[in-house]
Amino acid sequence: MRISDLSRESGVSIPTIKFYLREGLLPPGRSVARTQARYDDLHLRRLRLIRALVEVGGLSLAAARRVLASIDRRGGTLHDVLADAHSALAVHGPDDDGRRAAARAETDRWLATTGWTLAPDSPARDDLADAFAALTQLGWEVTPEVFDRYRRAADEIAASEIEYVAGMPDRAASVEATVVGTVVFERALAALRRLAQEHHSRRRFGAPDP
Amino acid sequence: MRISDLSRESGVSIPTIKFYLREGLLPPGRSVARTQARYDDLHLRRLRLIRALVEVGGLSLAAARRVLASIDRRGGTLHDVLADAHSALAVHGPDDDGRRAAARAETDRWLATTGWTLAPDSPARDDLADAFAALTQLGWEVTPEVFDRYRRAADEIAASEIEYVAGMPDRAASVEATVVGTVVFERALAALRRLAQEHHSRRRFGAPDP
Repeated sequence: MRISDLSRESGVSIPTIKFYLREGLLPPGRSVARTQARYDDLHLRRLRLIRALVEVGGLSLAAARRVLASIDRRGGTLHDVLADAHSALAVHGPDDDGRRAAARAETDRWLATTGWTLAPDSPARDDLADAFAALTQLGWEVTPEVFDRYRRAADEIAASEIEYVAGMPDRAASVEATVVGTVVFERALAALRRLAQEHHSRRRFGAPDP
Repeated sequence: MRISDLSRESGVSIPTIKFYLREGLLPPGRSVARTQARYDDLHLRRLRLIRALVEVGGLSLAAARRVLASIDRRGGTLHDVLADAHSALAVHGPDDDGRRAAARAETDRWLATTGWTLAPDSPARDDLADAFAALTQLGWEVTPEVFDRYRRAADEIAASEIEYVAGMPDRAASVEATVVGTVVFERALAALRRLAQEHHSRRRFGAPDP
């Protein structure tokens, strides 16, 4: 199909498609003339995937590129793909003032009690430590046990997610589901938590029904 | 305290503090000379709050300003504060191609079956619709019931969060906890889900222990 068809089918504008081509997120089409190329269903699929990562997942282009590279790489287990996606998604900045290091020691101690087997350098460890550091800096007198309820919910969700991916018929589908699932369902879970907060807050604080 | 003390106590650099002052996120100090001002514990607290919102929560400055304005407003219920925080946190862009509208109809239908009382214009509805639209565009043959498990987890978490906030001794603390809780625990929950995925993926796909 032409780039105009690709745009119409994907809902991504032609300038944005050209940008993704230049940036290497989308592989080049098949040249049919000096200034024309043809695209196929794989391009369309990739474009929808980029859109899910960037627009729904809020990933930077650099992070999206890392995730896509992980999908394209041959070999490696699904566990490796997941680890790559997690690395690309990690949001924490540098530990300028050593504040994270102290929080990290506490949250690592707590994580060791959860029964989870985790790599010592899992990037999400720092995200959790940053959240804990923010609470303690704000004067919340909490221990990492404040996360217990969240941990239980996360464990139940993740167990069923991994089972779902493992049950898919082919590797390409599993790989894509691993990446999309991590990004898109994270956003869905956040949205659902806010909706649930709205409901419970309305009941608890006696706000009128909408 | 001087701005240098404020910087040391908060871990925020002096140029960044000056930037927050210029941008109105941090109220001005008490002038003691033409180029000097003094700051107090309220400034320190506010600075830590900004840091939690911007660095941990990943909020834009504009979003952080809206959240802080909601905290500062007198009157209004805790429910109003929560609604303001949710508006500031909403990430969805415009619905360029009408793709969200179709997904929104389906997710709204499903939300109506949850028993939650929700405003028709809750911003998280669009975030959920975007997540659902991304899945269907990628060819996942799913209905919004795919979110059932996430909804149950979100409901349990939100119920206890609202009870926690409601039990706080004074309004200022409740308001701050509402905002911080929404932002910081969202990040913590995302981190914990990734850690749980790592654990279950390692077990399911037979990756070696780290």
